[in-house]
Amino acid sequence: MEYHRSGENCSTIFTVIMAGGAGTRFWPKSRLKNPKQFLKLLGKASLLSDTVRRALMLVEPQRCYVLTHKQYSGQVQESIPEVPASNIILEPANRDTAACVGLAAITLSKVDPEGIMVVMPSDHYIGHEKTFIKTLERAVNFAQQNDYLMTLGIKPFAPRTGYGYIACGEFLAEEDFAPVYHVDAFTEKPDQATAINFIRQGNYLWNSGIFVWKISSILKAISLHLPELYKGLKRLEPVLGSSEDTEMFEKEYEKLPRVSIDYGVMEKAKNIGTVPGDFIWDDVGSWSALEKYLPKDERNNTLNGGKHISVDSRNCIIDSEAKLIATIGVEDLIIIQSEDVMLVCRKDRDQEVKKLVDNIKKNGWDDYL
Amino acid sequence: MEYHRSGENCSTIFTVIMAGGAGTRFWPKSRLKNPKQFLKLLGKASLLSDTVRRALMLVEPQRCYVLTHKQYSGQVQESIPEVPASNIILEPANRDTAACVGLAAITLSKVDPEGIMVVMPSDHYIGHEKTFIKTLERAVNFAQQNDYLMTLGIKPFAPRTGYGYIACGEFLAEEDFAPVYHVDAFTEKPDQATAINFIRQGNYLWNSGIFVWKISSILKAISLHLPELYKGLKRLEPVLGSSEDTEMFEKEYEKLPRVSIDYGVMEKAKNIGTVPGDFIWDDVGSWSALEKYLPKDERNNTLNGGKHISVDSRNCIIDSEAKLIATIGVEDLIIIQSEDVMLVCRKDRDQEVKKLVDNIKKNGWDDYL
Repeated sequence: MEYHRSGENCSTIFTVIMAGGAGTRFWPKSRLKNPKQFLKLLGKASLLSDTVRRALMLVEPQRCYVLTHKQYSGQVQESIPEVPASNIILEPANRDTAACVGLAAITLSKVDPEGIMVVMPSDHYIGHEKTFIKTLERAVNFAQQNDYLMTLGIKPFAPRTGYGYIACGEFLAEEDFAPVYHVDAFTEKPDQATAINFIRQGNYLWNSGIFVWKISSILKAISLHLPELYKGLKRLEPVLGSSEDTEMFEKEYEKLPRVSIDYGVMEKAKNIGTVPGDFIWDDVGSWSALEKYLPKDERNNTLNGGKHISVDSRNCIIDSEAKLIATIGVEDLIIIQSEDVMLVCRKDRDQEVKKLVDNIKKNGWDDYL
Repeated sequence: MEYHRSGENCSTIFTVIMAGGAGTRFWPKSRLKNPKQFLKLLGKASLLSDTVRRALMLVEPQRCYVLTHKQYSGQVQESIPEVPASNIILEPANRDTAACVGLAAITLSKVDPEGIMVVMPSDHYIGHEKTFIKTLERAVNFAQQNDYLMTLGIKPFAPRTGYGYIACGEFLAEEDFAPVYHVDAFTEKPDQATAINFIRQGNYLWNSGIFVWKISSILKAISLHLPELYKGLKRLEPVLGSSEDTEMFEKEYEKLPRVSIDYGVMEKAKNIGTVPGDFIWDDVGSWSALEKYLPKDERNNTLNGGKHISVDSRNCIIDSEAKLIATIGVEDLIIIQSEDVMLVCRKDRDQEVKKLVDNIKKNGWDDYL
């Protein structure tokens, strides 16, 4: 296979940032009206804003697209002014990632049907950004030359059970002094023993959910594996971007099948490839994930905003807005102060935030969602 | 000794409520500008308001006096409208309880020098209020007939180390089918072994800090045991209640020796008596004291205001203002939300709130005091 650097090819590269999620795992800071991607969980910038900043290391602003639910239209424009407003594509409803990717593909195919899409979630943490960009460029180069759906793989740091794993198969090519592999299988959230086995075997990577493919390749894959979605997208195509047809567009979008791109396409297609990345990656899945990336005080407390004062308190994760958090004699707690809610959670039980939010729903306290 | 019911005597009974304290043990709800006595710690009324309500079970409003630091003048008037504004005596400075009692005594001696003063702290909890009033009446009757400084004693419920203990000596009289004892000694905050010994011996009572005496008796005792204070009070007397002499009054008051009535008079005088009371009494000394008096949820959490939602949380004390408190997997915590501060404290370490407030002072964060 011939080696090409990105930028040397004639096809356009687009970054497509998916920013429509409404997750609850960072409740009470993440809320229906202000979900995770808009939060400054890891410093001064929001996760979305950091994602855009990285995208702009690869493409010009006019090639950077952001998809979001229409209810977040204002927030997206406000938080990432560097992206042209016309590049913000609004989803009229949340129909999961396959519909979202499909909408991006048919929209961008009008700009350059031979273009490359780099799909990124808007709420991940990435460290060693230059290595990240280099890994992306390898995937771009390979996808330009081949009808392959590429996913960036991460060399696992530990046998984590909360992530999806990729089994690397056949060696496909060398790109910029690094290998490209065929993907043989996906395993979502393995048990501990399986995860340990995976990292021992050495040919398993974490699935980052960052995808690279030609627009023509993903549309072909959707037509093959999600024909209902493909038909729906074809019905959307003529009414795209026309303000007169907004109602028709919304009506058709809401009818699209609700399925993830991972389950609907990646796990079914045969032409899946991966480029192993040696950068730091975290899907920042819950409060305790922050601890690894934020500075600590002398008693190993993590403070992300606000003021903290304590008598003998250790290993806590503290996030406050304007308020002072005071602690006495406590350990291993997550203490979060939002405008109207305060959360105190044992650090090893932060997965249960979702359960708590469900209780709030049951109580009908919708203002707190 | 002849038996008299209160009301059958010619001398006036005054209640004197001391409401000038600025304690920190209920921080962050108790603040320099809004100390404990103004807080609704035990339900719908403030501790001060409950104290006044009880005082009015004994005397008419025009005989109910309240002493407070001048900075709380507005708050006192607002929270206890039933007390005539002219009965609120303002301390220009905090010179501890001996000066406060002395100021009340010289003020009331102008109304009736033969009157009886019933001195009550404004920040205690009292249950079985009818028994409390009956106990007070016994002390009033005895003090009317005798030059004795009476303190209400509480039959100890447990060997608490945070309280002061009274050793009852000689039987002095029967008042309304109950004994009056001479007080042989005071012991402040004994260690655990001593406290256990005290309650085993049976002749020890808790010192409630609720005092009853003739105005003439307390002034005589002050002149005997705190002659400097007495001289200071004599200098105050001519400028009392005159708006022209406010400056002089303030200047003289600030010069009064700073000593408590317990240490300065009660522990030194020989003419101390007590009436054992069978009512519930608590000085509500820290957050964990609330637990005994407030309703619990099914997991033994105490909620005093605000909303609480939890996943598997037990034995917590929760006090919020408008905000929702959410807890996951935590036990034995005190969680307090004030307007600008949130406190999370291990229940068995609530005595260290004072230490935390000291840290705040050291940081110069005066707004949080």
